[in-house]
Amino acid sequence: MARIQAARHVIDPIFLDTPLYRCEALEAALGCSVSIKLESVNPVRSFKARGTELVASQLADRGERAVVCASAGNLGQALAWSGRGRGLDVAVVTARSAPAAKLERIRAFGASVELVDGDFDMARERAVAVARDRRIRLVEDSLDVETCEGAATIGLELVDTGPAFDAVLIALGGGALATGVGHVVKARAPEVEVICIQPLGAPAMTRSWRERRVVTTDSTDTIADGVAGRRPIAAVLDDLLLVADDAVLVREESIITGMRLLLDHAGLVVEPSAALGVAAILEDRDRFAGRHVVTILCGSNVDMDAYHRWVGIR
Amino acid sequence: MARIQAARHVIDPIFLDTPLYRCEALEAALGCSVSIKLESVNPVRSFKARGTELVASQLADRGERAVVCASAGNLGQALAWSGRGRGLDVAVVTARSAPAAKLERIRAFGASVELVDGDFDMARERAVAVARDRRIRLVEDSLDVETCEGAATIGLELVDTGPAFDAVLIALGGGALATGVGHVVKARAPEVEVICIQPLGAPAMTRSWRERRVVTTDSTDTIADGVAGRRPIAAVLDDLLLVADDAVLVREESIITGMRLLLDHAGLVVEPSAALGVAAILEDRDRFAGRHVVTILCGSNVDMDAYHRWVGIR
Repeated sequence: MARIQAARHVIDPIFLDTPLYRCEALEAALGCSVSIKLESVNPVRSFKARGTELVASQLADRGERAVVCASAGNLGQALAWSGRGRGLDVAVVTARSAPAAKLERIRAFGASVELVDGDFDMARERAVAVARDRRIRLVEDSLDVETCEGAATIGLELVDTGPAFDAVLIALGGGALATGVGHVVKARAPEVEVICIQPLGAPAMTRSWRERRVVTTDSTDTIADGVAGRRPIAAVLDDLLLVADDAVLVREESIITGMRLLLDHAGLVVEPSAALGVAAILEDRDRFAGRHVVTILCGSNVDMDAYHRWVGIR
Repeated sequence: MARIQAARHVIDPIFLDTPLYRCEALEAALGCSVSIKLESVNPVRSFKARGTELVASQLADRGERAVVCASAGNLGQALAWSGRGRGLDVAVVTARSAPAAKLERIRAFGASVELVDGDFDMARERAVAVARDRRIRLVEDSLDVETCEGAATIGLELVDTGPAFDAVLIALGGGALATGVGHVVKARAPEVEVICIQPLGAPAMTRSWRERRVVTTDSTDTIADGVAGRRPIAAVLDDLLLVADDAVLVREESIITGMRLLLDHAGLVVEPSAALGVAAILEDRDRFAGRHVVTILCGSNVDMDAYHRWVGIR
């Protein structure tokens, strides 16, 4: 907890104290009180810079000049932003299938992008090799504690400034957001239910949480590119087992309905991963009926053509 | 200035310290550095609650029970929100043509809505009569100093926490936002250019500013419903003459292009009035080239059918 509190003094304030507000216009559709924690209204349009600010700051303090990460897109964009401000040479390895909008923004912030045939876990392997060959720091999302501590500052904002709430809904990918926020919530407001959500098409971490051992899958099939991993990290699973009260899987059509509800009733564009919480409410209204739920809208980096295809048709 | 600073302690913090960040993805299209001051991510999706919090707080302190305002929609929604939390009976008079989304949210917050055939200035006349007949406080947007002081707190946030910038672009309707923000900017950062923007289809205040006397128009014709007034208030014009460096008029197609750019490159849904700043840059790139401009995105209350019609076709 002390390290997470200290992180607030390292992270650029532009990424801190993000909007947290009740969105009553959503509530008729969802049957419960809903507050939004909005992580998309900053220069990188996701929460990831909270972690990359810590990483880049440490590297700069040590005089290092370069850093590499694998990314589904948001971590890379955030690391590019944080690294640029500190004179770091940033290399990002991504799957060729990553959204063009994410790749474009990574490059715009001055980072190099290496595209890998395959998915996020193939990019991870390649990033390991790049770090080894160039002898530079590899940032491993969710495994490196800075990425979790950065995400955990969201948890501080929820418990320090938020209204009383009953449950927090967290998109589950590699696990940095869920373990970071979950750690703070369980330490400071243990009565609040910590619920992690993954797509049915990318269920590896959820299955691992349920079986209490790492379960991998051969492939993923979801529009929620930000959380589409196949190989959970054992150490992250250990942390998740300590803080998550539940992990649930949702259908693609619920994610799309969630995105559309957030657009129509909250005026918010989000990427699919950020709609997982709303999707979870849609799929289990009885569970949430009458309760006050906070959902973290973790990012809005989405290809607009795809977005219009998903939600634009009326 | 002291009163504006004191206002920060009265306004619910949920409306304060809104996101202010550079949006580089917009800059290729606009040819200058652009920072966004985002006033749409709160429970009423506009900046208006900064003023209604002051009004409602004062009424509650005096033991008053009811209040009425005329509104294009956003003031009414904000007054409904602020009044509900303080046990006030809120009546809102609007034009029948106001966006359905705005009317729905005013009612959802528990206020009564009286629809008037005609436009905003007809609603103003009716609200005066309601206040007189019921002997309750009439809130007059832009004339009542609380509405200006509330808006002015945005100016404090710009000069206290913002990056160095060269110009601020402010939607001009009744004038509360422009005079409030302009007052603070001119007091604290006089070198920053204060530029007010109106649609060509609702030019009364801009013409008044240029002629230094109140100029009215017979009608308005713009999709920017939030700023569509015909009869500027003399006292507000006096204030505007003290703080505005320029007032410019923009075309409807520039407003639509502005909304589309904000959606495509910033992931932000805004109502037409909030796109006036971007529209002004689009219409005069040479003026802004190479400069750092802040544009206040003042609200996002828009009928989604109309919004899709404006920006959704690709």
